[in-house]
Amino acid sequence: MNTILYLIPALGLVGLIWMAIKSAWVTKQDAGDSNMQELAGYIADGAMAFLKAEWKVLSYFVVFVAILLAYSGTIHEVNGKEIHSSWVISIAFIIGAVFSATAGYIGMKVATKANVRTTQAARTSLKQALKVSFTGGTVMGLGVAGLAVLGLGGLFIVFLKMFNVVNVDSNEMRTAIEVLTGFSLGAESIALFARVGGGIYTKAADVGADLVGKVEAGIPEDDVRNPATIADNVGDNVGDVAGMGADLFGSYVATILATMVLGQEINVVDEFGGMSPILLPMLICGLGIIFSIIGTFFVRIKDDKSNVQMALNLGNWSSMLITVAASYFIVMWMLPAKLSLRGVEFSNLDVFLAIVVGTVVGAVMSIVTEYYTAMGKPPVNSIIQQSSTGHATNIIGGLAVGMKSTVIPIITLAAGIMASYTFAGLYGVAIAAAGMMATTAMQLAIDAFGPIADNAGGIAEMSQLPPEVRERTDNLDAVGNTTAATGKGFAIASAALTSLALFAAFVGIAGIDAIDIYKAPVLAGLFVGGMIPFIFSALCIQAVGKAAMDMVQEVRRQFREIPGIMEYKAKPEYEKCVAISTKASIREMMLPGAIALITPVVVGFIFGPEVLGGLLAGVTVSGVLMGIFQSNAGGAWDNAKKSFEKGVMINGEMFYKKSEPHKASVTGDTVGDPFKDTSGPSMNILIKLMSIVSLVIAPYIAVVGNQDSKSCNMPGHWDNASMEAQCKESGVCPMSGKACTWDEATKSCKHNDGSVCDEMTAGMSKDCCKKMMDAHCKASGKCAASGKPCTWDEATKTCKHNDGSACDEMTSAGAKACCSPEGEMKPECTSGAAKKDCCKSDAGQ
Amino acid sequence: MNTILYLIPALGLVGLIWMAIKSAWVTKQDAGDSNMQELAGYIADGAMAFLKAEWKVLSYFVVFVAILLAYSGTIHEVNGKEIHSSWVISIAFIIGAVFSATAGYIGMKVATKANVRTTQAARTSLKQALKVSFTGGTVMGLGVAGLAVLGLGGLFIVFLKMFNVVNVDSNEMRTAIEVLTGFSLGAESIALFARVGGGIYTKAADVGADLVGKVEAGIPEDDVRNPATIADNVGDNVGDVAGMGADLFGSYVATILATMVLGQEINVVDEFGGMSPILLPMLICGLGIIFSIIGTFFVRIKDDKSNVQMALNLGNWSSMLITVAASYFIVMWMLPAKLSLRGVEFSNLDVFLAIVVGTVVGAVMSIVTEYYTAMGKPPVNSIIQQSSTGHATNIIGGLAVGMKSTVIPIITLAAGIMASYTFAGLYGVAIAAAGMMATTAMQLAIDAFGPIADNAGGIAEMSQLPPEVRERTDNLDAVGNTTAATGKGFAIASAALTSLALFAAFVGIAGIDAIDIYKAPVLAGLFVGGMIPFIFSALCIQAVGKAAMDMVQEVRRQFREIPGIMEYKAKPEYEKCVAISTKASIREMMLPGAIALITPVVVGFIFGPEVLGGLLAGVTVSGVLMGIFQSNAGGAWDNAKKSFEKGVMINGEMFYKKSEPHKASVTGDTVGDPFKDTSGPSMNILIKLMSIVSLVIAPYIAVVGNQDSKSCNMPGHWDNASMEAQCKESGVCPMSGKACTWDEATKSCKHNDGSVCDEMTAGMSKDCCKKMMDAHCKASGKCAASGKPCTWDEATKTCKHNDGSACDEMTSAGAKACCSPEGEMKPECTSGAAKKDCCKSDAGQ
Repeated sequence: MNTILYLIPALGLVGLIWMAIKSAWVTKQDAGDSNMQELAGYIADGAMAFLKAEWKVLSYFVVFVAILLAYSGTIHEVNGKEIHSSWVISIAFIIGAVFSATAGYIGMKVATKANVRTTQAARTSLKQALKVSFTGGTVMGLGVAGLAVLGLGGLFIVFLKMFNVVNVDSNEMRTAIEVLTGFSLGAESIALFARVGGGIYTKAADVGADLVGKVEAGIPEDDVRNPATIADNVGDNVGDVAGMGADLFGSYVATILATMVLGQEINVVDEFGGMSPILLPMLICGLGIIFSIIGTFFVRIKDDKSNVQMALNLGNWSSMLITVAASYFIVMWMLPAKLSLRGVEFSNLDVFLAIVVGTVVGAVMSIVTEYYTAMGKPPVNSIIQQSSTGHATNIIGGLAVGMKSTVIPIITLAAGIMASYTFAGLYGVAIAAAGMMATTAMQLAIDAFGPIADNAGGIAEMSQLPPEVRERTDNLDAVGNTTAATGKGFAIASAALTSLALFAAFVGIAGIDAIDIYKAPVLAGLFVGGMIPFIFSALCIQAVGKAAMDMVQEVRRQFREIPGIMEYKAKPEYEKCVAISTKASIREMMLPGAIALITPVVVGFIFGPEVLGGLLAGVTVSGVLMGIFQSNAGGAWDNAKKSFEKGVMINGEMFYKKSEPHKASVTGDTVGDPFKDTSGPSMNILIKLMSIVSLVIAPYIAVVGNQDSKSCNMPGHWDNASMEAQCKESGVCPMSGKACTWDEATKSCKHNDGSVCDEMTAGMSKDCCKKMMDAHCKASGKCAASGKPCTWDEATKTCKHNDGSACDEMTSAGAKACCSPEGEMKPECTSGAAKKDCCKSDAGQ
Repeated sequence: MNTILYLIPALGLVGLIWMAIKSAWVTKQDAGDSNMQELAGYIADGAMAFLKAEWKVLSYFVVFVAILLAYSGTIHEVNGKEIHSSWVISIAFIIGAVFSATAGYIGMKVATKANVRTTQAARTSLKQALKVSFTGGTVMGLGVAGLAVLGLGGLFIVFLKMFNVVNVDSNEMRTAIEVLTGFSLGAESIALFARVGGGIYTKAADVGADLVGKVEAGIPEDDVRNPATIADNVGDNVGDVAGMGADLFGSYVATILATMVLGQEINVVDEFGGMSPILLPMLICGLGIIFSIIGTFFVRIKDDKSNVQMALNLGNWSSMLITVAASYFIVMWMLPAKLSLRGVEFSNLDVFLAIVVGTVVGAVMSIVTEYYTAMGKPPVNSIIQQSSTGHATNIIGGLAVGMKSTVIPIITLAAGIMASYTFAGLYGVAIAAAGMMATTAMQLAIDAFGPIADNAGGIAEMSQLPPEVRERTDNLDAVGNTTAATGKGFAIASAALTSLALFAAFVGIAGIDAIDIYKAPVLAGLFVGGMIPFIFSALCIQAVGKAAMDMVQEVRRQFREIPGIMEYKAKPEYEKCVAISTKASIREMMLPGAIALITPVVVGFIFGPEVLGGLLAGVTVSGVLMGIFQSNAGGAWDNAKKSFEKGVMINGEMFYKKSEPHKASVTGDTVGDPFKDTSGPSMNILIKLMSIVSLVIAPYIAVVGNQDSKSCNMPGHWDNASMEAQCKESGVCPMSGKACTWDEATKSCKHNDGSVCDEMTAGMSKDCCKKMMDAHCKASGKCAASGKPCTWDEATKTCKHNDGSACDEMTSAGAKACCSPEGEMKPECTSGAAKKDCCKSDAGQ
C-alpha cells in the first residue's frame, strides 16, 4: 500500500519536473527584436498587474473563509450527532487556493513568454511556431495536473498520518477525507473568481477594442494604435490561460476527490488495506500525467503544409487510448473482484467499463461541440445564410444553433450517467469522470496553445512583421479556435459528471436516502436552483457590457485627446485601458461569486439537505444546458464571422469582409463573445463550486434533515411490528432498553411501570436504532448488523462479535446499517470486512 | 348536490349567452367606409383561410389520437393490474379538441369584426374605440371560459350517469375522471398547435413585412403597398387572438381537471355526497365568469384624456377581489372543517388561504413582468442605453434583462408552491392555480383587446385615415402591449402551478410514492426533460426565421415583378403572402408538436413512471425559466424600440426614429419577436401538454414501476417481521393464505409441505397485501385498514365490517392503505367515511 501511496505525489512531481524542463526550453528561445519584446513586455506586465490585483482581493476572501472553516472544524457535535471534521480543513483550503492560483500563474507566465517567441519562430517556419506554442501549452497543462496530483496525494499522506488512520471504515479516515475537501473548496473558489474575473477582463477589452477600433476608427484588429489592444492581448492570457487553468485545476481536483469520498464508503479486502477504491482515481490521474507527456511527442509536423489539427488530434487520442488501456490493468490489479456501494454490487471489470463510458462521453461531447461550431459545417453555414438578411436574423440563427446543440450532448450525458451507474453504481459515475479527466494535462496543453498562438498573431500584427508570419500564426490560431471549442465541450462534460459525483458524495455525508422532487419544498429548491445559472449568466454578460462601455469611453477619449495616435506619432496610454479592465473585472466578479458561495449555505441551513439536494440538481441541469447553449452559440457566431475572411457564398453571390452580411456576422460575434468566454464556461465552475460548498457543509446540516423518527423505520429494517415482536420475544423494550411485557388487550408493549413502549412514529429519539441493536444483541446474542454471534459488553456499553470487533454501525451511516434482526449475511460477506452492506434484507435495494 | 352539479354548466351557459349578446352588439357597430371594409375583409378571409388549413391538418391528428385512445380504453388490465378507463375517453378527447378550436374561432371571428369597427369608432372618440375593442376582447374571454365550464361541467354530469357513479371513492368515479382527462388532452393538443402554428404565422409575416417594407423599401408599418401587410394583420388574429384563446382554454381546463383528480382522492363527509373537493374548482371558476362580467362594467373611460390602463386595471382587480371574497364563503360552506390528502391534513380555511396564495402569485408575476418590460422603467432604459453602442450591445442588454427577470418570478413561484402546499398539501397547490385562473374571462378580455386595437391601427394606416384616429388607436395599442406582457406573466404562472398540480395527479395515478433524483435514471430523465424546452424553442424560432425568409423573397418578388405598387397604381397580391405564412406555419408546427406529444409516451413506457416524473420536472423547471426569459426579453426589446418614437435621452443627447441607436433597437425587437410571441408563450403549453399526456398514460405505465415487492413493505406497514409475527400468531401464511407453522430452528415460517413462507423481498406477488389483510381479518377478526371488528365472508371472498362495508382497500391506492394490523383509527376518522388515510401509523407522514 505504501508504495502506491507515495507513488502518487511522485507522479505529480515528475510532471512538475518535466514542466520545469519545458519551461526552461521556452525561455531559451529567441524573443525577437526589441520592438516585439517591448510589446510582449506590455502584455506580460498587464497580465501580472491583473493577477496581483486579483490575488489581493482574493487573499481577504481566503483568510475570511479559512477562519470560518477553522471555527467549523472545532464543532464536533451538532444536535448530538458526531461530526468528523478538524480545524485543519482551513489549512487544506488555503493550500488549495494557493495551488490553484499558482497553476494559473505558471500558465500565464509561460504564455506571456511563449507568445512573442512563437511570433519569432513563425518568422522561420510553421513547424517551429507550433513547437514553441504547443510547448508553452504543455507547460501549463503539466503545471495544473502536476500541482493537483502532488497536492492531493501529498496532503492525503499527511492527513493519514496526522489523524492516525489505521482503518478505512473509521471515523479517522472520514476526518482525513473531509479535511481534504477543503483543498478542493480552495481550488474551486479561486477557479470561480479567476474564470469569471478573467472572462470579464478579456471580453471587456476585446469588445471595447473592437467597437471603437474596428468599427469606429476603421483600423484592423491588434493594431498598435488602438489603446485597448494591449488590454485585449492581456485578456487572452488572464481569461483563456490563467482562468481556464484554474478552472480545469478545480475540475480535476473535485473529480478525484468525489471519487475518493465514494470510495471510502466501499468496504473491500485488498492488498492496500482496503484503500484501493480511494487510491484508484489518484493513481489513474497520476499516470495520466505520464501518458500525457508521451502524447506530446506525437504533436509534431513536417513543414508549412502539414495539418496542425491532425498532429494535435494524434497526440490527444494517443494519450487517451494509452490511459484507457492502462486503466484496465490498474483496475483489475488493484480492485477486488466484487465491490458494493450503497446496495449496488459490481465487479472490478464494471469499474473499468465505467471509465470507458466516461472517456466515450468526453469524446462525443468534444466531437459534437466541434460539429456545431466548426467552419464549413451546416450549423455555422446556417448562421452565414441568415446573416444575409441582417443583424437580427444572424442573432436568431446563432441562438437557435446554440439551443439545438444541447440535444446530443444532453442525451449522451444522460446515457453516460445511466450506463456508468449500471456498471458500477455511483462509484461508476465518479470514476467515469475521473477517467475522462485523467489526460487533463494533454487537454490543457492543446487548449492553452490557442491563446498563445492568438497572442503571437497579435504581436506580429502590432510589430508589422511580414504577412507570411501572420499567415502562420493565423493557421495556428484557427486550429486554436477549434481546440478551444472541443475543450469547452470536454470541460462541460467533466463538470457535469463531477457534479453528479459530488452530488452523490453529498447525499451520503448529509445522511439522506432520497431527494424526492415530489415533495413541494424540494421542488421549490429545484426551481430556485434552475434559476441561478440564468441570473449568474445575466450578471456575467452585463458585467462585460458595462466594462466594455467604460473601455469604449476611454479609447474614444485617447483618440480625441492624444494627438498623433492615428499617425503613429504618439503612443496610446495602454496602461489606462489595462487598469480599466482590471478594475472592472474585479469589481464585477464579486456578486456572481457571492451567489455561488452563499446560496447553498443559506438553503442548506434553513431548509435542510434534501431541499439543498433539489437546489443542486436544478443548478446542475440548468447550468449544463446554459453552458452548452452559450458556449456553442458563441463559438458558432465566431466562426460564422471568420468564414467571411475567405469569402462565403450566399444565394449564389460571394460576400467578403466589410460586406453587409459580414457586418451582421460581427454583431453575432460580439454577442457571442461574453457567451462563449465569460458566462458559458463559468457555468462549469458554478455547478461544481455549489456542489463542493454543499459537501463541505453537509455534516453540519445532516442532522437537521435527519432528525425525524422515520430514519430508523425503513423497509426491511426496524419498525413498529418488529419492535413489538422484539418486545414479546426478549422482554426488553428496544426504545428504552428496560424490561417490558406484551399486553395482548391493548396490543401494546409496556414497561413494568405501565408506560408504553411503542412510540416509533412520533418523537422517537435519534439513537433508538442504536438502542434497539444493543437490545437485540443482549437478548438474542446475535449482532443485528452482521447476524453473527455477539456479546454485550457492559463496560464499554457496546456489543461485540466474538472476535472482539464492534457491532454498532449506528454512528455515521445511520439507519442504513440497521438491519432487521432476521437479516442474514450475504455469502460473499462472510470475510467480515464489509458489515454495512451485507445485510441480506438490504440486497437488491 | 345535484343543484351544484347542474349549476356549474349553467354558469358556463350564462357566460356564453352574455357573449352572444356582446357579439351581436359588436356586429351592429358601424364598419366604416367601403375601403376599410375591403381591407378588413382581406384580414378576415386570410384568418379564416389559416384556420381552415390548420383544422384540416389537425383533424387527421385528432382522428388518429382518438383511435389510439379508444383502443387504450378497451384495455382493462395491464400485468394483472386493473385500469379504470373506457373507450369514451376518445369522445371526450374529440369534444375537447372541437371546443378548443371553437374557442379560438369565436375569438378570431369577433376580433376580425371588432378591428375595423374600432377604427371607425376611433374616428369619433377614444371612449367609443375602447368600448368596441374591449367588448371584442370580452366576447373572446367569455367564449373561452364559458365553453370550458360548460364542457367540463356538462361532460362530468354525463359521465357520472354513464358510469353509474354512486360513490366518490369508487372505481366508477375513477373512470369518470380519467375519461374527463381526455377532454383536457384534446383541448391542450389543439392549443399547442394553435399557439405554435399561430406564433410562427404572425412572426413570419411580421418579420418578413418589416425587413423588406420598413428596412429595404422605406415605407411605414401597415402600409397598404406592402404585400405582406395583410398577412401581418392576419397574424395578429391567428397568433395573438386564436392562439392565445386556445392556450388559455387549455390552461383553464387543465387546472380545473388536475384539482378534480386530486379532489377525488380526498375522502370527506359533506352535503355533496363527498364530492365537494371535486366540485369546488368547477364552481369557483364558473362563478369567476359571472364576476368577470361584473368586472367588465368597470372598464370605461370619460374622454380622450382618460387613462385607459387604469380602467382596465380597475376591471381586472375588482373581478379578482370579488372572486377571492366569494371563494371564502364557498369554501367554508362546501368543504368540511377537516380534510386530508396523501397524509397531509388541512382545514377548509387552509384551502381558502391556498386560493389567496394563488391569486397573490399571479398578481406578483404580472407586476414583475410589467416592470421588466414597461417603457420608462430601468430594465428597458438599460437596453436603450446599450443601443447607443450598436446592435450587439442592444442584444446583450436584452438577453441580460430577460435572464435577470427570472429571479423574482421563480422565487415567488417557489414560495407559492411551499405556501400553498403548507396550507393544503397538493390540493392546495392545485386549488391555488384554479383560484388564479378563475377570472380567466377577464384576463383574456384584457389580453385580446390589445391585438384588436393593433389591427384597428393597421386598418387606419392602410386606409390613410386622419392622424388623430391613428393616435387614438396607438394609445389603445400601447396599453395593449403592457396588458400583453402582464398577461404572459399570468399565463406562465398559471401554467407552472397547473403543471405541478398535474404532476401531483400523475404521481397518484402512476402509483409511485417518490420521484427520487438521487437515482441515476431519474436524474438522466431530469437532464433530458430540461433539454426539451431548448430544442423546442430552437425549432420555433428557426421556423420563424425560415418562414420569414420565404416571405422576404415573395415581397421582393412582388415589388420587382408587379410594376406600380409603390405608386399605389397596382395592388399587391396579398393572398400569396397569406398563403406563404399559412403553409409555413402548418409545416413547421409539426416537429415541435410531435416532440411534446411523443416524448412522455416513449420515456414512460420504456423507463417507467419515476423516470417520466424526472422528465416532467425537468421540462417544467426549464420550460418556466425559458418562458419567462424569452417573453420578457422580447417584451423589453419591443418597448425599448417603441421608446424611440417619442425620443430617448442617451448620455445627454436625444435620439429619435431612424437614428443609429434606433436601428440597433429594431434589431433587438426583431430578435425578440419570435421570443415573445412564438417560443416564449409555447413553453406554457409544452409543459402542460407533456404533463397531461403523462397523466393519460399513467394507468398503463403504473404497473411497470410498481411491480417490485417493496410496495407492500413500507414503513409502518407489513414486512418480514410482521409477516412472521402473523404466521406465528395465526398459523396462516399471509402470502399463500395456506396453513403454516413457525420453525424456531430456521427462524422461518413453513407451509405444511415444508415450503417456506417468508419471501417478502423477492418475487412477492402484487396482491400479497390483499392476502395478508384477508388473513389478518380471518385470524384476528379485526380489519387491518380500519382497526374495527370485521368478519370474513367466504362467499364474496371479502372481509366485511359488522355494518357490511368492505375492508379491502388494496385494489387501487395499493400499499398505502395497507395498515399494519396494529394500526388504529385516528379519532377524527371514527365516522368511518375516510378509511384510507385514517391509519394511525400513517399519521404525520
